[in-house]
Amino acid sequence: MTHPLIKQWLNLKQKTHHCLCIGLDPDINTLPNGYEKNLEGLTHFLKDIIDASILECIAYKPNISFFEAYGIKGLLVLESIVKHIDNHIPIIIDGKRGDIGNTSAMQARYLFDYFNADAITLHPYMGFDSLEPFFNYKDKFHFVLGLTSNPGSKDFEELPLANGKTLAATVIETISHWNQTNHNIGIVVGATENKLKQARDIDRDLVFLIPGVGKQGGSYENAYTHGKNNQGLALINVSRAITGAINNKKTVKVDTKDAIQAILNQL
Amino acid sequence: MTHPLIKQWLNLKQKTHHCLCIGLDPDINTLPNGYEKNLEGLTHFLKDIIDASILECIAYKPNISFFEAYGIKGLLVLESIVKHIDNHIPIIIDGKRGDIGNTSAMQARYLFDYFNADAITLHPYMGFDSLEPFFNYKDKFHFVLGLTSNPGSKDFEELPLANGKTLAATVIETISHWNQTNHNIGIVVGATENKLKQARDIDRDLVFLIPGVGKQGGSYENAYTHGKNNQGLALINVSRAITGAINNKKTVKVDTKDAIQAILNQL
Repeated sequence: MTHPLIKQWLNLKQKTHHCLCIGLDPDINTLPNGYEKNLEGLTHFLKDIIDASILECIAYKPNISFFEAYGIKGLLVLESIVKHIDNHIPIIIDGKRGDIGNTSAMQARYLFDYFNADAITLHPYMGFDSLEPFFNYKDKFHFVLGLTSNPGSKDFEELPLANGKTLAATVIETISHWNQTNHNIGIVVGATENKLKQARDIDRDLVFLIPGVGKQGGSYENAYTHGKNNQGLALINVSRAITGAINNKKTVKVDTKDAIQAILNQL
Repeated sequence: MTHPLIKQWLNLKQKTHHCLCIGLDPDINTLPNGYEKNLEGLTHFLKDIIDASILECIAYKPNISFFEAYGIKGLLVLESIVKHIDNHIPIIIDGKRGDIGNTSAMQARYLFDYFNADAITLHPYMGFDSLEPFFNYKDKFHFVLGLTSNPGSKDFEELPLANGKTLAATVIETISHWNQTNHNIGIVVGATENKLKQARDIDRDLVFLIPGVGKQGGSYENAYTHGKNNQGLALINVSRAITGAINNKKTVKVDTKDAIQAILNQL
């Protein structure tokens, strides 16, 4: 069984010839010239980026925390951005949720029913019943944190367990098992060769959402080579290497396309 | 060094003679008679509960996910509730956040600067640099998930590590170490005797936020006896056993006080 979102991503990959997910982590302070330094300017900027890239990516990943940082008015911007994105491009709302079951059910309502996200990101710590209310949204897709590439991944994720494996490896194996039910779960894996290989060795079919490409140091080529699954799919997220490459409002179309090409030319 | 919020909680404990934290997990569908079944009714209900309990608790813990479930209008209710709570009672916004550093900094802005929370809850999975932006808010307090009592705590938290301890024990030891810097970190521990004892054996000073009392099965007495720290402090959260005990709008004051007494009489 192939999940409808996996089919959609594979179709988009066939059209665009790559697996680029564009991260939207907006910051008023770094808006290019020509945009007012306020939430209206931010909204225009994000819509311009989307218009310039809609045929060149397979997903958008708005990071809800960057909108929340502006309070409720920031969330209104997210709402308007999500509505602006064409229906044929899946939206991953990155919010790293997860809590006891009755609370997780509320989080799912917010992200899936209210914001209409196609996919989200989750924390594994509290185990299966903390994530089941999300997984029960069968038509949606759920990326659980697996193995990240931040320095703190050493603190817990890379600890060796009594079973001889690391915590992250065991988390990924467990997710791989959970995924047999609805086939609607993937994992988040950091964009280093070593981490991607470790995760890929555990399950060749799981879809990886891969942050950390671009300004965070990872290359698109590396991420694709080591992160793609058996179907040739991965969601390789690039945020600031695209949104930070715009010189001003007048050149946003060309600058967006150039930034995307610069990332992809790594492949 | 005693953190200003710990001083405040100890003062409130001296006045109220207990360690009750009231959880606000609102649900329009379960509003008592006399309240309109909409967000306005919900706001009135929560304000009535607060007015009836303000002298009888040491903290309020609004669960942000229950407000988010109603979308942006629900978050406006949270904003108005937070403003309604008297300044001398600390507010713990329960949102289980945590991400890579630059995102965590945005989450901290939302919860501390925008909503003016005094304390929050966090996920440990991604390690120290994912939580440092929160901890850097020195005057605020940070409860990191330690050992929970939901069934899924078996999936990862209770796994044995190569060091002979469980993951949760190692997480708690690590948090105990992190807490030496700013003394502004506590942990979330589920309200069962066994879990509380395990956690308390690791650090006798850490402040525990203890959910799971009341409708979720734990008793206040158990939670206090096994969860209190060396200073006699714990934050024992009760949500639905109070908010679910109101018969109607006319009796909300008496019903709130009766529900609180019923919980405390367990001690």
